[in-house]
Amino acid sequence: MACKTVTLDNMNPNIIKMEYAVRGPLVIRAREIEKELERGIKKPFSEVIKGNIGDCQAMGQKPITFIRQVLTLCAYPDLIKDDRFPSDVKERAKLILSYCGGKSVGSYSDSAGIEIIRKHIAAYIEKRDGVPSDYLNCILSTGASEGVRTVINILNHSASGKPPGIMIPIPQYPLYSATLAEYGMYQINYYLDEDNEWALDISELKRAVEAARDHCEPRGLVVINPGNPTGSVLTRENIEKIVKFAYEEHLFLMADEVYQHNIYAEGMEFHSFKKVMTKMGPPYSNMELASFMSASKGFMGECGLRGGYCELINIDPEVKKMLLKSISAKLCPSVLGQIAMDCVINPPQPGEPSHETFIKEKNEVLQSLKERAILAANTFNSIEGMQCNKVAGAMYAFPRLILPEKAIEKAKSLGQAPDFFFAMQLLETTGICVVPGSGFGQRPGTYHFRTTILPQPEKLKTLLSHVKDFYEKFMKEYQ
Amino acid sequence: MACKTVTLDNMNPNIIKMEYAVRGPLVIRAREIEKELERGIKKPFSEVIKGNIGDCQAMGQKPITFIRQVLTLCAYPDLIKDDRFPSDVKERAKLILSYCGGKSVGSYSDSAGIEIIRKHIAAYIEKRDGVPSDYLNCILSTGASEGVRTVINILNHSASGKPPGIMIPIPQYPLYSATLAEYGMYQINYYLDEDNEWALDISELKRAVEAARDHCEPRGLVVINPGNPTGSVLTRENIEKIVKFAYEEHLFLMADEVYQHNIYAEGMEFHSFKKVMTKMGPPYSNMELASFMSASKGFMGECGLRGGYCELINIDPEVKKMLLKSISAKLCPSVLGQIAMDCVINPPQPGEPSHETFIKEKNEVLQSLKERAILAANTFNSIEGMQCNKVAGAMYAFPRLILPEKAIEKAKSLGQAPDFFFAMQLLETTGICVVPGSGFGQRPGTYHFRTTILPQPEKLKTLLSHVKDFYEKFMKEYQ
Repeated sequence: MACKTVTLDNMNPNIIKMEYAVRGPLVIRAREIEKELERGIKKPFSEVIKGNIGDCQAMGQKPITFIRQVLTLCAYPDLIKDDRFPSDVKERAKLILSYCGGKSVGSYSDSAGIEIIRKHIAAYIEKRDGVPSDYLNCILSTGASEGVRTVINILNHSASGKPPGIMIPIPQYPLYSATLAEYGMYQINYYLDEDNEWALDISELKRAVEAARDHCEPRGLVVINPGNPTGSVLTRENIEKIVKFAYEEHLFLMADEVYQHNIYAEGMEFHSFKKVMTKMGPPYSNMELASFMSASKGFMGECGLRGGYCELINIDPEVKKMLLKSISAKLCPSVLGQIAMDCVINPPQPGEPSHETFIKEKNEVLQSLKERAILAANTFNSIEGMQCNKVAGAMYAFPRLILPEKAIEKAKSLGQAPDFFFAMQLLETTGICVVPGSGFGQRPGTYHFRTTILPQPEKLKTLLSHVKDFYEKFMKEYQ
Repeated sequence: MACKTVTLDNMNPNIIKMEYAVRGPLVIRAREIEKELERGIKKPFSEVIKGNIGDCQAMGQKPITFIRQVLTLCAYPDLIKDDRFPSDVKERAKLILSYCGGKSVGSYSDSAGIEIIRKHIAAYIEKRDGVPSDYLNCILSTGASEGVRTVINILNHSASGKPPGIMIPIPQYPLYSATLAEYGMYQINYYLDEDNEWALDISELKRAVEAARDHCEPRGLVVINPGNPTGSVLTRENIEKIVKFAYEEHLFLMADEVYQHNIYAEGMEFHSFKKVMTKMGPPYSNMELASFMSASKGFMGECGLRGGYCELINIDPEVKKMLLKSISAKLCPSVLGQIAMDCVINPPQPGEPSHETFIKEKNEVLQSLKERAILAANTFNSIEGMQCNKVAGAMYAFPRLILPEKAIEKAKSLGQAPDFFFAMQLLETTGICVVPGSGFGQRPGTYHFRTTILPQPEKLKTLLSHVKDFYEKFMKEYQ
């Protein structure tokens, strides 16, 4: 046998370091268990329930009819004359196709996206924030993830010899830690304040950036709002303080706002970083900001279509040119993903034939998510040894749990993080798949897990009751 | 005004270095000219004809009905009962949806792609090569480009302190130079033999790798077959020699085979690197190889859907695990792009209702491309001062042209490459947009440009006659 040219010893070590827990070993094991069930292997449960990933439609959420109808006519324009499709769907498809090369979704678009969709995005942002938006600053991407990776890539330089550092929340969505590891950049952890609904405490931001200066050159600050995995929603006052902090520390602001439609808590609303920063006036209104949005979350949950965009605000024009050049070799994001994004940010208007159904479908999804958000947090809080902040937004609950010393020892003896051990036992015993807190980061000595609230109501109830029963047994076993 | 946190002076310098000529300054100017024409500004021509990019459907190629029908039923399953859709389209859509989470294309797939599509890919490769293929080695990607970037990323390490180097052909498709620049890797140029139909001369490969050892640690070898921008098709004998060379030099082989359906020259056929290498027997049959394929080229030209895949052969299992982990944070390629790929590699079979139309549409596209391939090369060869190798495959002609000394001086005085100057003048005078040879690389002192053969026949004739007339005038002007 020929010896390999590429082995663990001589491959890119950054790839070896990177982790992405949302699709990590637990999920791989969950899929194996599914196959074992299919093959008839007996288990104490009949199905795996996946609470590990924000994959709405996989968990039974119905697609929004308007989006799928527009996609259909764009992909197959022969149907544009078909009576079954409403006139606003037809008009939208015709409009978008008129901006596609050869009037086909099979053509490449500009790397930054189809012009009319970029204009619709700018109009959406203007309406949302009451602040102008230039469509040339709105860049379509392959999901929000690709936009995040593109922007962080631009920041990957330091003059000091120390690596460039990016501040990310702990707990965080592991796209950030994975990207920083892949790029060889320094991850500056700041802890969210669990005792204060996961708010950002400015003294903690200051502590984190000061402590990091010995190891890196701080360049950027990531904020996820609404929070993943925390389910928190930031107040306007909190955002103002964060903006001031970023200004004082000369940090490039990245706002992951992909859950902007997912707000459940009474009296809370989504405030975009752009709106808050702009309304604060100079010098804050001149700050650079990248805001990310996705077609995969919200009420539409079109994860598989890979739609997303980024708005770049106050970026140095020469830097923006370079960023656009950097995406040009990737050609373009999926045109159908772009079209899904268009339908989300430019929905049917009152009086148009699709409006009523659209609003009904949207509200049903969001209302049901709201009920599940409350159910999840309440259930976790009813379990002795667990506590869970309000799921004010996004799609996740991130309860904290006490683990007995004996269980911690047992985990250590297996070379596992204690909450990984717990989650794996939960999976093997009940078929419930959640992601341990260690995959997102947490204060040392605390343990959590993340579950989505996406299983349909009955299934979520099953998930929650399995977690409850198992945790009680687990506590007894290791007490 | 606040000073920027990110400027040209402190951003990622690799991004500043990277170039992607296929979407470079000439194309940006072409788009401006189109807008000027729309605004009524008078030009000596009425439209821009884009020969710069392999964007089939933008140039008038019709989509393949089967592909679009399957996409339609997958995106909008309400139509599965509709009589207008053939039964094989319905069966395909049902089969694929049964492998999607929640039976919806809105769900994420595995990062490596939908299982049944991976199996179809493996079956396609087995049939093509007569050699086994394991579906677990077939990884779907966002176009072929993302697969190329993923594999090159794995190779980005060197133990020697010198950067890792990748051998790429000159001329090359600039995805490779752009990716190497972005990753900070060393580009090892080997020149294709223009006097021998752009074949790979093994002594040139040896020269290149030896010369590069002072500057880098050679890790991989990229071969593009059929060739982009050259339009060449490698013989089996040539491929065998390349495989032996890679073996001797302990290089990881990357075969860009996205044009495997685009073979026009009589008596020539496509030989995959996998087939040739496997049939050579040990030790060659044990060599590592990554082969890339796309839904954007061939007869389907579905560029905007972003479908592609990579087959990984004989990769160290631990390395493969790491590669799969590296794509997990990107979640998955577009599900609809994956479905387009499925239709290409698993087309309707004889006796199935869509078969006849599929074959007719496919053959029409390929026959017309063949005629255009001959027309383009013949026309360039009829122009005094130009010479062009046979367009044996792919979608491009890459003629060489003499440029007068005075034109070269003029270009230099403008800070432009001479063939860039020529191409820009061609664009401004005739509306024809081609890409200068300097965007792909060429032997010093030689000048070329690349044009696609994708404009529909009448438009291609216009393009060719404009090039001829302009070149003759240009030669007179600068003689």
